[in-house]
Amino acid sequence: CSSEFVPAFDNSAMDGFAVRTGDCGSASPGGPVVLRIKETVRAGTLANVEIEPGEAVKIMTGAPLPLGADAVVMVEATSSEEDGIVRILQTPEIGEHIRRRGEDVRCGDLILREGTRIRPYELALLAAQGIANVSVIRKPSVSLLATGDELLEFTEPLSPGKIRNSNGPALAAALSRWGILPRYQGIVKDDRQSMREAFQKELNDSDVLLVSGGVSVGDFDYTKALLEELGLQVIFWRVAIKPGKPLLFGLLRNKLVFGLPGNPISVMVCLEEFVRPALEKMQGHTPRYPSYHLQGNLENEYRKEEARQQYIFCQVSETSEGFRVHVIRPQGSAMLGMACRANALALAPVGVKFLEKGMGVAFRWLK
Amino acid sequence: CSSEFVPAFDNSAMDGFAVRTGDCGSASPGGPVVLRIKETVRAGTLANVEIEPGEAVKIMTGAPLPLGADAVVMVEATSSEEDGIVRILQTPEIGEHIRRRGEDVRCGDLILREGTRIRPYELALLAAQGIANVSVIRKPSVSLLATGDELLEFTEPLSPGKIRNSNGPALAAALSRWGILPRYQGIVKDDRQSMREAFQKELNDSDVLLVSGGVSVGDFDYTKALLEELGLQVIFWRVAIKPGKPLLFGLLRNKLVFGLPGNPISVMVCLEEFVRPALEKMQGHTPRYPSYHLQGNLENEYRKEEARQQYIFCQVSETSEGFRVHVIRPQGSAMLGMACRANALALAPVGVKFLEKGMGVAFRWLK
Repeated sequence: CSSEFVPAFDNSAMDGFAVRTGDCGSASPGGPVVLRIKETVRAGTLANVEIEPGEAVKIMTGAPLPLGADAVVMVEATSSEEDGIVRILQTPEIGEHIRRRGEDVRCGDLILREGTRIRPYELALLAAQGIANVSVIRKPSVSLLATGDELLEFTEPLSPGKIRNSNGPALAAALSRWGILPRYQGIVKDDRQSMREAFQKELNDSDVLLVSGGVSVGDFDYTKALLEELGLQVIFWRVAIKPGKPLLFGLLRNKLVFGLPGNPISVMVCLEEFVRPALEKMQGHTPRYPSYHLQGNLENEYRKEEARQQYIFCQVSETSEGFRVHVIRPQGSAMLGMACRANALALAPVGVKFLEKGMGVAFRWLK
Repeated sequence: CSSEFVPAFDNSAMDGFAVRTGDCGSASPGGPVVLRIKETVRAGTLANVEIEPGEAVKIMTGAPLPLGADAVVMVEATSSEEDGIVRILQTPEIGEHIRRRGEDVRCGDLILREGTRIRPYELALLAAQGIANVSVIRKPSVSLLATGDELLEFTEPLSPGKIRNSNGPALAAALSRWGILPRYQGIVKDDRQSMREAFQKELNDSDVLLVSGGVSVGDFDYTKALLEELGLQVIFWRVAIKPGKPLLFGLLRNKLVFGLPGNPISVMVCLEEFVRPALEKMQGHTPRYPSYHLQGNLENEYRKEEARQQYIFCQVSETSEGFRVHVIRPQGSAMLGMACRANALALAPVGVKFLEKGMGVAFRWLK
């Protein structure tokens, strides 16, 4: 709750002249009202001046309103101040250009509800009230693990049959843009003992575990079985989306566990569609799901899988007739080069098989 | 440019069986084709196996394709592996579920154009190629100064006629969300000498100077005149927007100088509409102006100033008939409490005087 009024005192919203409206009944450029300038009040000073009939006080934005004044005429609506005189060229309304004490926040008002996200506006309001400390919900700690015998660190030279772990860096980059610095725990081999130990350690240390790889139906996809042995309560496994179908989500010792697909494009889609809203909820926010409220028209056709909702990487350009959406082809859940050429993600729902040229599609920007 | 192919080798996009399509001509659930399983290839191993007619190789996602194979049948389209035998239930097409060497990036391809913004996708592509170091454009250094005799630091108790500096914290918070940690240099009194010294110091130390206050037409608005004395080349001063009209922009010794209005709401609008795009351009990006592409219908009317483009703080809710836009009243360029109740900013153009209830307006989310 606020212990102060904002503004704390009646003050001027403009650089101009504080007047008594009774004096300025019919002021106009053709018939100005002439007032005597009593003094000048600047911002940051006290309001220890009073206006008598026939007087005006020169006033700066933010300066306290003199006693007796009931309007401010902005400097652009006045002329000729010589000899301590001002000409008022416009009839002011009562209260015009005055900010009243408490018009924004009143003493005792609730300033910010519990669970409010502190944007720069909220921070400014707290600063204006002199509140230097507030209780906040701590950010969740997040551990990142990548599984797979085929993985090398990105600092290693490539050897036959191997690929470098790009999921770790990509997840770390995305999370840090959202204000969460994850624990990047590198690569775990497809080996039950190593994986079990790594999972246990991260579950001790973090609120959220993100594992990429090993959640599909391959012979060496141990992630799900091992997590279940450790006590994972599976909330869902496999989702009717493309990319991202193998996604696993569950709870283990009150920690959130996401088994993300191993493919780099699938990982990023699952991160934004599922992991980010969960992290926001943990921080007391209303989760913000990615919003596909923008609409554009397809420049080229695309055949999709009917049974899955598909996220399609596109290059969208703005034209005078609206947005034009160019599908980058081919799409592939491991095609990072493809994703790097995209500036937008279009969403095609379940039940649709063929996207025709010219058809309207919903999309969002990829930032 | 890429010195590697991505993928580096033909590999399987699915967990399943690598086959010769010639063997599986008419496979169906009613008439399965039976193949002998030669061996199992896991991801991360070498492709030193060859399939002969009548044979299949069990293969995991990401594993190298055996010689002789020209398609992968996913495990869901097969049955009964007992006795080293697999039944293929679907006719595969040539190349199905195979990721070809270089299909995403070819050796010698330009991976990322100069000036590309490194999003998580670009970072992943660099990691996949083993590129641990890239040249980037350094972030601009930004100094923040607030001017005004009425200002106190947010840690100070309020005294009559004074307000606390909320612009410094708000600007610092917004900039740091965009990856720029500004130099917060506190408050300068409305005193020519102090202001001149502060401006000179910050212009020596930073690429961008953001000064709030002192740019309007008040008697003690020294900011513009002093900056001009120091050599400021004014690019523009005063803009037909509300809030934000007094905005000043210029160049001084190759540094960017923004004279921001003193009012806290005006400051934030100018920051997002003018300062942010400039900072992005300095970082080699195409500037992203705030985009008002969302449309909603007004729940309440609003009278605006005809001659200025106005940014209107609103509470937007989503309904089955689209977005409903509720204008928060009154609007005011110093009303932080008002802004804190808003989740969106609507844009009303020049030339419009009265926004009727039910009318369509463009808006963007305030995050």
